[in-house]
Amino acid sequence: MLDQDLFIAGWGHSRFGRLEDQSLETLVVSVADQALRCAGLEPGEVDAIFLGQFNAGLHPLAFTSSLALQVSPDLFGVPATRVENACASGAAAVHQGIAALLAGTAERVLVIGAEKMTHACPATVGSALLGADYELAGHQSETGFAGIFASVATAYQDRYGPVSDALGAIAAKNHRNGVHNPYAHLRKDLGAQFCQNISDANPVVAGPLRRTDCSPVSDGAAALVLTRDRLPHASVEPVRIIGFAQANDFLPRGSRDPLVFRGSEAAWWRAHEMAGTYLADLDLVELHDCFTIAELILYEAIGLTDRGKGRMAIDNGWVTPEGCMPVNVSGGLKAKGHPVGATGVSQHVMAALQLTGTAGDMQLPTASLAAVHNMGGLAVANYVSILESTG
Amino acid sequence: MLDQDLFIAGWGHSRFGRLEDQSLETLVVSVADQALRCAGLEPGEVDAIFLGQFNAGLHPLAFTSSLALQVSPDLFGVPATRVENACASGAAAVHQGIAALLAGTAERVLVIGAEKMTHACPATVGSALLGADYELAGHQSETGFAGIFASVATAYQDRYGPVSDALGAIAAKNHRNGVHNPYAHLRKDLGAQFCQNISDANPVVAGPLRRTDCSPVSDGAAALVLTRDRLPHASVEPVRIIGFAQANDFLPRGSRDPLVFRGSEAAWWRAHEMAGTYLADLDLVELHDCFTIAELILYEAIGLTDRGKGRMAIDNGWVTPEGCMPVNVSGGLKAKGHPVGATGVSQHVMAALQLTGTAGDMQLPTASLAAVHNMGGLAVANYVSILESTG
Repeated sequence: MLDQDLFIAGWGHSRFGRLEDQSLETLVVSVADQALRCAGLEPGEVDAIFLGQFNAGLHPLAFTSSLALQVSPDLFGVPATRVENACASGAAAVHQGIAALLAGTAERVLVIGAEKMTHACPATVGSALLGADYELAGHQSETGFAGIFASVATAYQDRYGPVSDALGAIAAKNHRNGVHNPYAHLRKDLGAQFCQNISDANPVVAGPLRRTDCSPVSDGAAALVLTRDRLPHASVEPVRIIGFAQANDFLPRGSRDPLVFRGSEAAWWRAHEMAGTYLADLDLVELHDCFTIAELILYEAIGLTDRGKGRMAIDNGWVTPEGCMPVNVSGGLKAKGHPVGATGVSQHVMAALQLTGTAGDMQLPTASLAAVHNMGGLAVANYVSILESTG
Repeated sequence: MLDQDLFIAGWGHSRFGRLEDQSLETLVVSVADQALRCAGLEPGEVDAIFLGQFNAGLHPLAFTSSLALQVSPDLFGVPATRVENACASGAAAVHQGIAALLAGTAERVLVIGAEKMTHACPATVGSALLGADYELAGHQSETGFAGIFASVATAYQDRYGPVSDALGAIAAKNHRNGVHNPYAHLRKDLGAQFCQNISDANPVVAGPLRRTDCSPVSDGAAALVLTRDRLPHASVEPVRIIGFAQANDFLPRGSRDPLVFRGSEAAWWRAHEMAGTYLADLDLVELHDCFTIAELILYEAIGLTDRGKGRMAIDNGWVTPEGCMPVNVSGGLKAKGHPVGATGVSQHVMAALQLTGTAGDMQLPTASLAAVHNMGGLAVANYVSILESTG
């Protein structure tokens, strides 16, 4: 159990989407500025900065840690570090921020996740994302990372039977949720029928995954202020971090059972052990639905269903906002968008909004305990945080 | 003052140079394995892994944190994180490792720095390194990062008078030192006359910098085991970390006086304040001589001379192994080589060898206190560690 206070004391979030008028720098600066104002902190009060960004060739500037210093001349000398764990780079930054607080090297940490993607041509984006795969990095692939998760979906169906309709239902749920998220990239309730079927408007990207089974390429950024103490001038109630864990798995695909996200399971149980909580205690989960098959398998990894039974969670409506375990009320990566480095930080912001009752049209009636799950690669880098309302 | 024990309990180091028979993975795995054996640790006893690597397009695999898990199947589930701060990525990994120890999230941390560069064509290497510059990232440049430091050298000479001979003397010192370093890329005593003059064998890279004023492009890796306790089965005496600090400066060049490495100064003084030490207490300094002009300006930044008087340190022989303040006894980046992400970790290994009396032909007669300085960009990300012998 954590014997120290750890708070999310403020946050900022850009709209996710095709943000042609924003650069990586303006995204970083704007969410950092928002988070500081929200926390009621002056820039000069920040002790450390962590930036989560994948990059991998998406942006020519390959040394981005100090971009956040552009917020204010008062940030001279503040330690700023970029951390990268592929699509979990955002949570990596959050967890390094937590470590800085616990280490006593910082009292007030600014955490930022950011990615600018839509300016790059599809081939560059595909190549950058494939850079996260041990086997395919540097190689050509028609289907990119979708192809990797498509092979997981195929293997899943081979082992457990058809789930194409369940995947479509997951997509439809997240699109329906995303309508209520003002930050989301895609805000359209596409409906189950559209998501469950192949059509001109919903073609196969990599069989059996349709376009609606894949998260979009997005620009965006999100930021948090992490502290040991409640801040006197904050404009929000803080959220308490009561558990956190990271577990990495081996990179070569042959070392992992693709249908068991073993690293995600390990991070999940460790974080709950630290928090002293169980799945049933949670009011919501934000988890890493880069592809709908990932969300399906994660239902199993977090213990919501047995292995091979993930579809029960969507078939029975458990994971809808009205269900017993709302998953991705924000719309998830699927509808909110997936600016790689921003995602993990964004998930923490989405949970914080719920836990402080400030989620607007997304707000759940009861939200006092949330879990956030962010992963890099095919469950290679896995992070889980358990967050609690202080209200 | 640090009120807790922090030890470097073991280390590993590859040869630096053109290592055609090594991949990034074999480099990472071999130094990690060496460091664990040196520390007398089983892989399963490692609590956390930090990898410092710049990459920036040098290597197609853009998600490298878990490469170290290839050391052993027992490393499943260990949190592994890549940190990047350009040429200070190595020290960034070391300092994140320290934070994990202080945070209590780990008792035994494996820190690795690695870079594979020589397989890439010169244009790719140049473009990757320019990725660390805010103004030139993504642009063409005939002279690359050498051009940036050349403009610093020109500005320095405009303000303080000619130093071309002093730069040549710094190069000659580091090349002479490198002869005794079995890990060094370049092991030839080129002599002051060669380094101080332009010739067919020593052409201008970017005026006034000659080839001998620039560190080479190298492959290599280094690793450390960091612990809170002395390890019972270690094959070396541990080295104590008594001070550490990081300071970032603004990215745009217009925000910085290029002749004052203000961020390096800040990190230097903070680390000494934590350690309760002064320059005069040190027996050696390993500092970031990516270009000879950097070493010259760093003599001033660390307080060895007044501003504009850096050449006194080399003219008077203070910084030779026989002098009052030996700098880069290892040969520095200049002779040892500069595999970007490996450099900061390597500098800690070089200091550890000296402090444990195991530096072989490099060994100084007295070495009980050392400082390590590693920087990214033109003094944008700056790290200093103060290390003490336990013997």
